[in-house]
Amino acid sequence: MQYSAVPLQKLIEQFERMPGIGRKTAQRIAFYILGLPKNESAAIADAITDACSKIHKCALCCNLTEEDLCPICKNEKRDHSTVCIVEDTQSLIAIEKTKEYNGVYHVLHGAISPLDGIGPEQLTIKELLSRLGGDEVREVIIATDSDIEGEATAMYLSKLIKPCNIKISRIAFGLPVGTDIQYADEITLSKAIEGRKTI
Amino acid sequence: MQYSAVPLQKLIEQFERMPGIGRKTAQRIAFYILGLPKNESAAIADAITDACSKIHKCALCCNLTEEDLCPICKNEKRDHSTVCIVEDTQSLIAIEKTKEYNGVYHVLHGAISPLDGIGPEQLTIKELLSRLGGDEVREVIIATDSDIEGEATAMYLSKLIKPCNIKISRIAFGLPVGTDIQYADEITLSKAIEGRKTI
Repeated sequence: MQYSAVPLQKLIEQFERMPGIGRKTAQRIAFYILGLPKNESAAIADAITDACSKIHKCALCCNLTEEDLCPICKNEKRDHSTVCIVEDTQSLIAIEKTKEYNGVYHVLHGAISPLDGIGPEQLTIKELLSRLGGDEVREVIIATDSDIEGEATAMYLSKLIKPCNIKISRIAFGLPVGTDIQYADEITLSKAIEGRKTI
Repeated sequence: MQYSAVPLQKLIEQFERMPGIGRKTAQRIAFYILGLPKNESAAIADAITDACSKIHKCALCCNLTEEDLCPICKNEKRDHSTVCIVEDTQSLIAIEKTKEYNGVYHVLHGAISPLDGIGPEQLTIKELLSRLGGDEVREVIIATDSDIEGEATAMYLSKLIKPCNIKISRIAFGLPVGTDIQYADEITLSKAIEGRKTI
């Protein structure tokens, strides 16, 4: 389908490539942007340029930040002896939302996945090890995803960290709160039984 | 939820305001953009700036174009005596996709909707009338949506155009192709009966 203007077609194509956006939504967004007042459409372009130029990895935990250290690493009220290792900033945000965790983080920016050509050297594992080399960290919580890549990364990391004489834990897997046992899949259910706790 | 960087938060907010995008997708898109190489993220911002600065209304039919006249109005092979009136460029694109229509268009850029403060003067009706004032146009097909606003606009336009001595038609309403009659809603079905054709 040929659109009436090349810049319109290019705009739609840019949105179509984004995750979770199909052709129809891309078209809808493009027309929405074209219908905005000039200053509002410029604000979108600026937000993209701004975010991409200002945001970089935190010097300590590799979380995305606009300053040298991210607000979590800078916060002295947080427990800097506990480091929660996550795959990405989205996982960090999800854990922060629980308001239950008061330690700090380390963001790997991915998980080991040989099929996608991602090995340990593509992740921020070097930065993690240099952090663990000091005296400050006493516990590491591995909170990578519960898929194959996340599990492989967790295994790899636990072996790597073991010699550092640091307590290592993995977040618990089991039934999500509010589910019926009859609808749980077999693997989750067997993980739930395996990880049972005495009450 | 406080994100670790203000530019990130602003980027997410920009996407959240777009049609069809919720908080989760906005977050996903923002991280997708942050993960792109610099030149690719710049290309997105450029596509927005470019589209908004270069695209304007066609001098004749008000379709969106980057030139003075849109490709359809410029095309001499098209039948310039038939004008199909549509609410927006998206409708035009949908009709073009059928490859059945060889006339030209007039894009209203909206429909009459008093509740939203949109009256005839907000639409490109003045431009339409000045087009119809000449000798060229012999038929007008009103292809506004089949909702209340579209119907009201169609009624308004047909009354307005009648004195011009031009053939006026409205696109047909009835059962969409491939539907079961038992599942059709009452209004569509009564429209289908009303608009029945002798075979």
